[in-house]
Amino acid sequence: MAEANYQSSQLYRIRHSTAHVMAEAMLERFPEAKIAIGPPIEDGFYYDFDLPRGINEEDLQWVEARMKEIIAKGVDFSVREVTPDEARTQFKGQPYKLELIDDLVAGRVDDNGNEIAAPADKLTFYTQDTFTDLCRGPHVANTKEIDPEAINITFKMPAGAYWRGDENRQQLTRIYGTAFESAEQLKEYLERLEEAKRRDHRVVGERLGLFTFSQLVGKGLPLWKPYGATLRDTLERWLRQVQIENGYLPVVTPHIGKLDLYRTSGHYPYYKDSQYDPIQVDDEEYMLKPMNCPHHIMIYKSEMRSYRDLPVRYAEFGTVYRYEQSGELHGLTRVRGFTVDDAHLFVRPDQLLKEFKDVVKLIEFILSSLGMTDFRARVGTRDPSSDKYVGEDALWEDATAAIIQACEEVGIRYHVEEGEAAFYGPKLDFMVRDVLKREWQLGTVQVDYNLPARFELEYVAEDNSRSRPIMIHRAPFGSMERFIGILIEHFNGEFPAWLAPVQAVIIPVTDRNNDYAESVASDLRKRGIRVEVDGGKGRMQAKIRSNRERSVPYMLIVGDRDTAAGAVSVRLRTDEDLGAMPLADFIALAERVVNDHALELH
Amino acid sequence: MAEANYQSSQLYRIRHSTAHVMAEAMLERFPEAKIAIGPPIEDGFYYDFDLPRGINEEDLQWVEARMKEIIAKGVDFSVREVTPDEARTQFKGQPYKLELIDDLVAGRVDDNGNEIAAPADKLTFYTQDTFTDLCRGPHVANTKEIDPEAINITFKMPAGAYWRGDENRQQLTRIYGTAFESAEQLKEYLERLEEAKRRDHRVVGERLGLFTFSQLVGKGLPLWKPYGATLRDTLERWLRQVQIENGYLPVVTPHIGKLDLYRTSGHYPYYKDSQYDPIQVDDEEYMLKPMNCPHHIMIYKSEMRSYRDLPVRYAEFGTVYRYEQSGELHGLTRVRGFTVDDAHLFVRPDQLLKEFKDVVKLIEFILSSLGMTDFRARVGTRDPSSDKYVGEDALWEDATAAIIQACEEVGIRYHVEEGEAAFYGPKLDFMVRDVLKREWQLGTVQVDYNLPARFELEYVAEDNSRSRPIMIHRAPFGSMERFIGILIEHFNGEFPAWLAPVQAVIIPVTDRNNDYAESVASDLRKRGIRVEVDGGKGRMQAKIRSNRERSVPYMLIVGDRDTAAGAVSVRLRTDEDLGAMPLADFIALAERVVNDHALELH
Repeated sequence: MAEANYQSSQLYRIRHSTAHVMAEAMLERFPEAKIAIGPPIEDGFYYDFDLPRGINEEDLQWVEARMKEIIAKGVDFSVREVTPDEARTQFKGQPYKLELIDDLVAGRVDDNGNEIAAPADKLTFYTQDTFTDLCRGPHVANTKEIDPEAINITFKMPAGAYWRGDENRQQLTRIYGTAFESAEQLKEYLERLEEAKRRDHRVVGERLGLFTFSQLVGKGLPLWKPYGATLRDTLERWLRQVQIENGYLPVVTPHIGKLDLYRTSGHYPYYKDSQYDPIQVDDEEYMLKPMNCPHHIMIYKSEMRSYRDLPVRYAEFGTVYRYEQSGELHGLTRVRGFTVDDAHLFVRPDQLLKEFKDVVKLIEFILSSLGMTDFRARVGTRDPSSDKYVGEDALWEDATAAIIQACEEVGIRYHVEEGEAAFYGPKLDFMVRDVLKREWQLGTVQVDYNLPARFELEYVAEDNSRSRPIMIHRAPFGSMERFIGILIEHFNGEFPAWLAPVQAVIIPVTDRNNDYAESVASDLRKRGIRVEVDGGKGRMQAKIRSNRERSVPYMLIVGDRDTAAGAVSVRLRTDEDLGAMPLADFIALAERVVNDHALELH
Repeated sequence: MAEANYQSSQLYRIRHSTAHVMAEAMLERFPEAKIAIGPPIEDGFYYDFDLPRGINEEDLQWVEARMKEIIAKGVDFSVREVTPDEARTQFKGQPYKLELIDDLVAGRVDDNGNEIAAPADKLTFYTQDTFTDLCRGPHVANTKEIDPEAINITFKMPAGAYWRGDENRQQLTRIYGTAFESAEQLKEYLERLEEAKRRDHRVVGERLGLFTFSQLVGKGLPLWKPYGATLRDTLERWLRQVQIENGYLPVVTPHIGKLDLYRTSGHYPYYKDSQYDPIQVDDEEYMLKPMNCPHHIMIYKSEMRSYRDLPVRYAEFGTVYRYEQSGELHGLTRVRGFTVDDAHLFVRPDQLLKEFKDVVKLIEFILSSLGMTDFRARVGTRDPSSDKYVGEDALWEDATAAIIQACEEVGIRYHVEEGEAAFYGPKLDFMVRDVLKREWQLGTVQVDYNLPARFELEYVAEDNSRSRPIMIHRAPFGSMERFIGILIEHFNGEFPAWLAPVQAVIIPVTDRNNDYAESVASDLRKRGIRVEVDGGKGRMQAKIRSNRERSVPYMLIVGDRDTAAGAVSVRLRTDEDLGAMPLADFIALAERVVNDHALELH
């Protein structure tokens, strides 16, 4: 079912209005301040200021207290249209606002000279209390709609906000804030922020020995340590198997390709800035592959295809390399080399709807299996006022209709966002909320008419004529690295048993139980369970604690009585004690949990 | 057990002497010919000539017939020492021989100025019949030791043999020949050559749809099609599992690394010619990784290690990129990007022997499991007269002794070859004969004292001091691409059932049996068997033929009687007919064959 946008929600208006209230309070505290812009963002808002001095904790406390007073007064938000001249008079002495007014009056064009916004001869002001801003709204009617106990502001060093994001221009002070509909929601949000810090995948990844970085290997290039490589491989095997069961065919392609390949696809020079420089080989230029599609296309093209052969679904866990500025790099979630859980479907037009539906169902299944059930889908369509898109109108309309119909028929939550299409076709993005309610853009499904045309792809139709297939690009996770980074935080490192790098650890109570512990481990290993024996020195309680720290799902304590009875005493990382049970019972339990990919441990 | 060299065998002398007889016959046919060199090689010999005109089939037939006459005469080979002046007189008018004489008199040095051969004041001549050559031997005493019916000569276009391999010097005509101890052996050899042509992995790979190449992607960069990717993945999964069971830990590392990493390892600029040019990223240089060791070393270095943590065995199917001249590229066996079944063991000196033995046993197990039981190992030791090696003498002696002791204790055939060590340590190479008796150098195991020193690797010893681990590099296949190329030819595409991309195909006799065929396929798929249904139009016999062509191990023919009985009629690709059996029986058979990695189909 289609769902409403955040942009049209009451929460969005509350946050936008609270940003204006913050600007009002800031101008009271810093009358000389120059104000820039203050939009709502996900989870809150910010406002950028050019301040006469650095801001301190006392300023922030004063401003927040003052905001609450203004809100509690119940002031109206009023809107009026003004001429550019009236606007310039109002913002005399506010150079950032004057620059914005000039731009609005001039209209805006993109780098190709296409109009993004028409020249404006009327502007809008929103006024509350003593403060007026140049703004298109929307806002609340009165601050009574805002709960003064549900707002909060913060300042993070380094703010690093340049005017218009241009590092050659003035650096501004960005004050973040948030607002919720109730104080309770704000409290939950702040608790989630604290929890997110504790769960930072870089911290948890270090504690669990999942990955590391090396300055000598290079920035943004993770090295997967054994536990991380095991987790990653387990996840990949599962997804690979699910895909095979759904008719996908595995392929393997190299990590480089000739520059001509990317010239043909149009990826070069279009995406040049995010690609590595070409490598000269003999008299040819090669490039680290920034995506897998052109390689899969060359496999499609290696044979003549008949309408009966379609759909063809090629899947590869294909590692690509893209340039990211070093300041943008962040743990696993922003890296320079990552593995896409990629697939490309070559389909006939009459197969598009069914194939798209099947892809959506598969992604839904994959995300749900990992406990990510709180997701929505964004249908990205063309911006009808732009001409940056390639392909015939009729194809765009068919594809967009197919995507929406697929969402309706599968029954997922979706909303349409104009202008969010790729330049070569409409797409569907999966926006997933983790347990901390943070929204991540994960999987994507894109309909592509462009590459089939550029590479002159064909199949022999039933009437023996040559027809052009449509391509669907899809990746449920998008990037294995980023997804695992998110998974680590989602689960706080307490992965479901099937994913845990070490699934069980055997803890002998005394040295007398060491041989039995090893025989238990051996029995479990034969059943494919990843197991370790914690047979070193140290007290049993300390071992339980350290293995709980490592988030090992099952701790099997074996003492004299267990040894005599062929039993194990099962302790979960949740501290739940399942007591002693015959080894065969534990094996049955673990196999059931693992084979079912269960999220619970028993 | 240590084994004798080919170089000291009677077969080697026979071939070397037959080369001289060929030169004699050639000089009779072309009295103006200039002669260059004529060494024995694996499987035969060649001799290079500078001829006054192109050679033709009639010349070859005349020369071969004349060789047989000379051999049948029973002429002696006599050796004598001569002074350089005598040699120059003998070879007046033979410029290639005169150049060789000058070099021998001057002695030889390598590129670093180290002496390879001392200056000679005496040279040796071998003479048979009317022909004398500058030669160190050894030869047969009399051509009676050669069977004239066991020799053969050939000329392959383009010969492409430059004098001294230097493309700026004279191009020579290379005549190949071979000789065996019996006519029967020659006949078998020629049959194997024919069979090798039929089994060419490029031909079989195309027929079975395993891989393809694209000029737009680039030369020497295979694209694995679905059947090939399935085969490759199956092989990799098995090897990965075998390694895990043997205590190896998986890691995953990126395909690029900073140039400084390879400067530290010494791979750059030492191997610069076989590496791709660096890529500039911000103010740093990166390189496509030519090997995985430096990356694994950085994982080792990411933690402080204790003597109790060793050995640490990191395994990765790591794809590396190396420059090969485009003329050298050949199908899968010579490529520019390949995946090494790599592992690096970090061991204490007291663990070296045991770990080396375990590695040898593992490689023996892996090769034998694939039916490659005809192999020998080559122990590559230092050339004591060269100073290109790094590391202390005592370490070299210990390591060499450990390698030989490991071979003795494991009980594999081995021979020692001086000068075949890596510059950083002695090594063991596995030389494997396929069913066509062609010898391939596959797996390698190397002992390395160099990289641990260059990267300052350490562990905390029992006495709390810092000690340096030794590294073992090992790769049973060496390259997945090359190994699969060899496997394709070894099996002629008729892979063991566990490796076959399609393990079974169901052939319904009539359309009435299609539903049953699908239900059989579904049952097999649930058991993890890779199965297809050949339900299209076409006669049953034609389908059996085409699936036999595709080397599908099991063809399950299902007619009305099978459908009624819940049975399948099993036909093997060998044409063996196992008759009708209950489906459950076939499943049990197939599961046993697959799980056992059996080479036979039942």
